[in-house]
Amino acid sequence: MNRTLPAGLRASAVVAASSANLGPGFDSLGLALSLYDEIIVETTDSGLTIEVEGQGSGQVPLTADHLVVRAIRRGLDSAGLSVDGLNVVCRNVIPHSRGLGSSAAAVVGGLAVVNGFATQVDSPELTVAQLVQLSSEFEGHPDNAAAAVLGGAVVSWTVAGSDPARYDAAHLQLHPDIRLFPAVPETRSSTAATRGLLPEQVSHADARFNLARTAMLVVALTQRPDLLLEATDDRLHQAQRAPAMPASAEYLTLLRRSGVAAVLSGAGPAVIALTDGSDLPPEILEYGAANGFTVTEMSAGDAVRWNAETPAQTVSG
Amino acid sequence: MNRTLPAGLRASAVVAASSANLGPGFDSLGLALSLYDEIIVETTDSGLTIEVEGQGSGQVPLTADHLVVRAIRRGLDSAGLSVDGLNVVCRNVIPHSRGLGSSAAAVVGGLAVVNGFATQVDSPELTVAQLVQLSSEFEGHPDNAAAAVLGGAVVSWTVAGSDPARYDAAHLQLHPDIRLFPAVPETRSSTAATRGLLPEQVSHADARFNLARTAMLVVALTQRPDLLLEATDDRLHQAQRAPAMPASAEYLTLLRRSGVAAVLSGAGPAVIALTDGSDLPPEILEYGAANGFTVTEMSAGDAVRWNAETPAQTVSG
Repeated sequence: MNRTLPAGLRASAVVAASSANLGPGFDSLGLALSLYDEIIVETTDSGLTIEVEGQGSGQVPLTADHLVVRAIRRGLDSAGLSVDGLNVVCRNVIPHSRGLGSSAAAVVGGLAVVNGFATQVDSPELTVAQLVQLSSEFEGHPDNAAAAVLGGAVVSWTVAGSDPARYDAAHLQLHPDIRLFPAVPETRSSTAATRGLLPEQVSHADARFNLARTAMLVVALTQRPDLLLEATDDRLHQAQRAPAMPASAEYLTLLRRSGVAAVLSGAGPAVIALTDGSDLPPEILEYGAANGFTVTEMSAGDAVRWNAETPAQTVSG
Repeated sequence: MNRTLPAGLRASAVVAASSANLGPGFDSLGLALSLYDEIIVETTDSGLTIEVEGQGSGQVPLTADHLVVRAIRRGLDSAGLSVDGLNVVCRNVIPHSRGLGSSAAAVVGGLAVVNGFATQVDSPELTVAQLVQLSSEFEGHPDNAAAAVLGGAVVSWTVAGSDPARYDAAHLQLHPDIRLFPAVPETRSSTAATRGLLPEQVSHADARFNLARTAMLVVALTQRPDLLLEATDDRLHQAQRAPAMPASAEYLTLLRRSGVAAVLSGAGPAVIALTDGSDLPPEILEYGAANGFTVTEMSAGDAVRWNAETPAQTVSG
């Protein structure tokens, strides 16, 4: 049924890192970061080659199980397309297993590449809604995926009672004063392992606390950066995960005690600080450097982009 | 220390009804409704007279314990003012004990009247932040009070760790397509009693569910009315309160099954339906009428207003 693409077509995608949760907004809020992976794909007559440059090079399987390849296959199928063979090049900048959405970027990038092919054969592109849905299916939750698709900040959700799960998201325009300072440690983490640290039950008071902060955070991100410190307070997951990442927990606590809004990026161990325009205090930067964190300033990431040809040069953050 | 106002000054305030919670946004979100109480006050040489017209007439104590009088006294004190005597007239339109914020309106109105006096003696008015703080102190929570002060929809919160509690709120501009249909039953309810129905513990999944819906609801109210049905879903309080108000619970369920976003107004028993522009289905209106609900369309309420003189005519919804 699917239309087979001719060999020799080239397409690429550029896709941002992302932070999920943002403190109180567990499994809901997401924020794209200006750190980009690039995926470059060529159709061939047969077979599969995968080349990974940068992050994850030599650490992930170079087979059809590779996440980018699985996403391309899924995207092709949804677009009614197929291929006889593929050469895939991944230029990876987003660190893996730090809570920066590298797997969401791989999936969203793989899906977006399909649109770069579709335009060349006058086939309909996957819609933004499809990109959110398909990428969230891979992830099992929509926060990183929606941020990578839409760019900026997002509110995302799983439609209640949907089976199979339906995912959707809305874009938020980040207030221009907000500055982002991710701190990336050398140590890695596993979302699955840290999710196991979460309690089955929480107090009604803590549930109320987090929902009120999540509402505040939507306001803070879009209109009121002065509220960021209060609006990023959380009682549902960060303290619970602290034992699995003591250095991140300590850095996070130090930031907040210094009056700087800071949250775990996703399930950590990266930490992201958000200010309403000010720099990070020098003692914070010193502490970060002395404790193995690479602290850099980033801006909000752009929505995923795709091209029908290989860009002239790599885009990186 | 306080400056005593001369006898014979007149001031008034007009203050809106409000819905708190709005489904998922327990103790956080609020919405002012275009149903207004009016308070008219005159300073006298001594004594206190209170006249209540409309809702609550003959049912509330006409003494210094009257909520409006207590709020006026609190506001005068905060503004550095005092009086020898007062004549107070309350023209009440907001039904009592239905979840429509009549007590918040009484408090906000009482405080706002003080500003109507302050302007006449060149004394500083209470700021909007003071009005939110003082009225929320009376209420013990800021959602109704902030809605009555600010008008429209609000995100409100209690500052974490503050003791005494500090309250604050941000105004949301309601999307112009949204239409509001409160349904007010004849039966009354007590917030204190229905709050007792809430569990101490909830599942982490339900806590996540509500915080994600609360974030969605901020987006739905301001940008995406099409999301209202999904965004008003709640797992933390409405089902738990249903046994105390079966008719409201049934009407709410009927609305939602018909595809209409609907929530308890505060702790109920009033129910409010929100549409993205459409009318309520005729069968809903029939059901409401047959089951003792007065269903009317309202718009978002205005911020509290105060005047240095008695308005020429009563403002009502």
